[in-house]
Amino acid sequence: MLFQVKMTVTIPAHLASGEFDSLKKLEKARAQELQIAGVWRHLWRIVGNYANISVFEVTNGEELHEILSTLPLFPYMNLEVTPLCRHPSSIEARG
Amino acid sequence: MLFQVKMTVTIPAHLASGEFDSLKKLEKARAQELQIAGVWRHLWRIVGNYANISVFEVTNGEELHEILSTLPLFPYMNLEVTPLCRHPSSIEARG
Amino acid sequence: MLFQVKMTVTIPAHLASGEFDSLKKLEKARAQELQIAGVWRHLWRIVGNYANISVFEVTNGEELHEILSTLPLFPYMNLEVTPLCRHPSSIEARG
Amino acid sequence: MLFQVKMTVTIPAHLASGEFDSLKKLEKARAQELQIAGVWRHLWRIVGNYANISVFEVTNGEELHEILSTLPLFPYMNLEVTPLCRHPSSIEARG
Amino acid sequence: MLFQVKMTVTIPAHLASGEFDSLKKLEKARAQELQIAGVWRHLWRIVGNYANISVFEVTNGEELHEILSTLPLFPYMNLEVTPLCRHPSSIEARG
Amino acid sequence: MLFQVKMTVTIPAHLASGEFDSLKKLEKARAQELQIAGVWRHLWRIVGNYANISVFEVTNGEELHEILSTLPLFPYMNLEVTPLCRHPSSIEARG
Amino acid sequence: MLFQVKMTVTIPAHLASGEFDSLKKLEKARAQELQIAGVWRHLWRIVGNYANISVFEVTNGEELHEILSTLPLFPYMNLEVTPLCRHPSSIEARG
Amino acid sequence: MLFQVKMTVTIPAHLASGEFDSLKKLEKARAQELQIAGVWRHLWRIVGNYANISVFEVTNGEELHEILSTLPLFPYMNLEVTPLCRHPSSIEARG
Amino acid sequence: MLFQVKMTVTIPAHLASGEFDSLKKLEKARAQELQIAGVWRHLWRIVGNYANISVFEVTNGEELHEILSTLPLFPYMNLEVTPLCRHPSSIEARG
Amino acid sequence: MLFQVKMTVTIPAHLASGEFDSLKKLEKARAQELQIAGVWRHLWRIVGNYANISVFEVTNGEELHEILSTLPLFPYMNLEVTPLCRHPSSIEARG
Repeated sequence: MLFQVKMTVTIPAHLASGEFDSLKKLEKARAQELQIAGVWRHLWRIVGNYANISVFEVTNGEELHEILSTLPLFPYMNLEVTPLCRHPSSIEARG
Repeated sequence: MLFQVKMTVTIPAHLASGEFDSLKKLEKARAQELQIAGVWRHLWRIVGNYANISVFEVTNGEELHEILSTLPLFPYMNLEVTPLCRHPSSIEARG
Repeated sequence: MLFQVKMTVTIPAHLASGEFDSLKKLEKARAQELQIAGVWRHLWRIVGNYANISVFEVTNGEELHEILSTLPLFPYMNLEVTPLCRHPSSIEARG
Repeated sequence: MLFQVKMTVTIPAHLASGEFDSLKKLEKARAQELQIAGVWRHLWRIVGNYANISVFEVTNGEELHEILSTLPLFPYMNLEVTPLCRHPSSIEARG
Repeated sequence: MLFQVKMTVTIPAHLASGEFDSLKKLEKARAQELQIAGVWRHLWRIVGNYANISVFEVTNGEELHEILSTLPLFPYMNLEVTPLCRHPSSIEARG
Repeated sequence: MLFQVKMTVTIPAHLASGEFDSLKKLEKARAQELQIAGVWRHLWRIVGNYANISVFEVTNGEELHEILSTLPLFPYMNLEVTPLCRHPSSIEARG
Repeated sequence: MLFQVKMTVTIPAHLASGEFDSLKKLEKARAQELQIAGVWRHLWRIVGNYANISVFEVTNGEELHEILSTLPLFPYMNLEVTPLCRHPSSIEARG
Repeated sequence: MLFQVKMTVTIPAHLASGEFDSLKKLEKARAQELQIAGVWRHLWRIVGNYANISVFEVTNGEELHEILSTLPLFPYMNLEVTPLCRHPSSIEARG
Repeated sequence: MLFQVKMTVTIPAHLASGEFDSLKKLEKARAQELQIAGVWRHLWRIVGNYANISVFEVTNGEELHEILSTLPLFPYMNLEVTPLCRHPSSIEARG
Repeated sequence: MLFQVKMTVTIPAHLASGEFDSLKKLEKARAQELQIAGVWRHLWRIVGNYANISVFEVTNGEELHEILSTLPLFPYMNLEVTPLCRHPSSIEARG
């Protein structure tokens, strides 16, 4: 099943920048691992914002929540989750 | 350049349904033509809504506006356009 | 997979009331059919509003969209779809 | 009487994480106690968010407020309370 | 149980004014009947708006929905329902 | 003159809890004093929220502002003030 | 007592323009009558909008509602009423 | 030229109250100086809020920004600026 | 003085398309006349929307309101007016 | 390609003012460098707010994001990015 997820990061004032940088490294590694696995299918930066628009392909909501809630930056992100499905005019095989 | 476009359709009460159906056919044909051309790169239906989330790859804003404003359903759609760019953690070749 | 769907109905001024009443009968029959099938698992009225809060159990977004978009009142409803999953503190077997 | 309650948790920056973890344990125990008592009838996680959608069956507003305002995480939660009632199309015995 | 209900009326353009006036008379009669019965406990006009703030005392949500949804002006009103309960600092006997 | 005031309290993270508790005691005493004086005519708790809905009867805005801005919890409250007046369908003597 | 009232006019599509013009004439006459009486103390146009910001001095909410609800354009206006009072830094005699 | 400015003050938690009080004294002196000069033409308190509605008469935006951005409380205020002009129904000489 | 004006057009369902097209021609002629006069300094289309972002240089609010309120499409536009002034970091001569 | 960017600065409470002043100097130098290069084409202050409206001319979203995300004040700014294109009524050569 497909979900669009808009992730907006708020840099925590109380966290040392070094600590936040290492979280960002972990986040990048995890994101690339999930993209290679075909779960995190698209990841785009929103121009001018510390935010991204992503598309996930997962079996169900459980799996998506498990992935999102264990992302290193999860405590510092606002997430908007929109369930998607195949559009009747789409020519994409996997939709 | 990449843009996400969220399109929400409002069915016009004053239009005969037959007229609206033919507009929808034109819209579908145009959408598939643009997908084949690689311009309309993704088209997903938002579950439960007469709305879609699309991703366009165009040269610039002029080209995107020309495409969107000449869609048959344009007068009956609310469009939210979000400029995207490559995310540093993305592994997609074309981003 | 579980989804909460909030449905708010707007009575169309341009539709004859008889026509709207028959749509409502069709809607009720379809809703009860889906409840019996275990798909539409909960259906509550929001006090004071022509709106309801429902919980659906479906295989994926495709199936939910197919159900919602073919409801007789779909053209006159605003739908907010929220994907749900099992809460770690829930004691419900089926979650 | 039925109420839907949407609970969104904001992790307090000024609280030691150990302190917050113990609050979470108390919250889970209390939630399961109320579910067993049949008061907290449904508890679902909103996918991708530190939030849940719950349904409570109580005698009146007093009882619900007493329950919600004494939840261990109450000071760190934003609560949206929506009164529900039986829908004319519902086939659920207890509604 | 106590509920605050904010009612905002939108005068329907498609309804003949005579028809709307008679609805308003029915609405007034019903409102006074419910006030005499002690159900509609308070009814105030919001200054400058075709809207009111009311407080109802009912057994449960079912009863309130039955009352509100059968008000003559119900199809032309937007209702916001807020459940109330006794405040610990209140000195009112009936709260 | 009648005003509805919705008061939403935000517990300040930087204040010692003991200090906040004593403010709450002062607030309760002041609220009861004003209720006895017939100025603070109604005080209800909004179910599930650290907020209340109150109705004040005062001579004018000056008097109401003096009362509200000198409440012990004023610095930690968000106040929404709505001017009320007698509704033509109200049967309440004092309106 | 002082109130600010923001009035935003929506030109009704179903009304003949001649009919609306005559309502506007009545509105202007009434506005000037109230200004001369010292009740409608200030009336400014919001640049670029069919809207105004006004300040009224009245005895109470009853009087203000009577004035506003009998304005010829009342059915076609959205009104936001804000109660004002004397500011401690104001040097205006009448506040 | 006339501008309405709505100023909402947020008391900074990190500032010592003594420091904030002295800022308030400076603010009051500056406000009265500008009122005497005929620039700050109206200053009203919004009932129940640490906020005011003001009207300024200035030559242009530059002048207004210079005044507002150098107010002692500027860093702790949210300002909404609305350009005004003479209303065709106004009888005020200076508009 | 500089103002940004965001103009969003809503195509009126009740107007014959021919009538609306002639209004658009008048609008274009007027817009170009004002640009040549140096009053309408910038005019950009918002990609994907029947809306524009413009910058006007006028003497005061009166002049801007006169221009905007007499635009042929004024009755079918929602206008957001933002007063601008010279930015301390700007290198533009005319600001 | 043209973009409008609205930048709203929030002064961080946890940053020493000296540190913030030096960031502001760096920001000014960078802004003027980009204006000279013809990339940052317009920069206006929003009257009464610590915010500006700017227009950028860049090749694509990548370039704009690179510029915005490396501005010294980026961590303390909320940015709204609106893609623009040539308006059919514009007489500007470069649009």
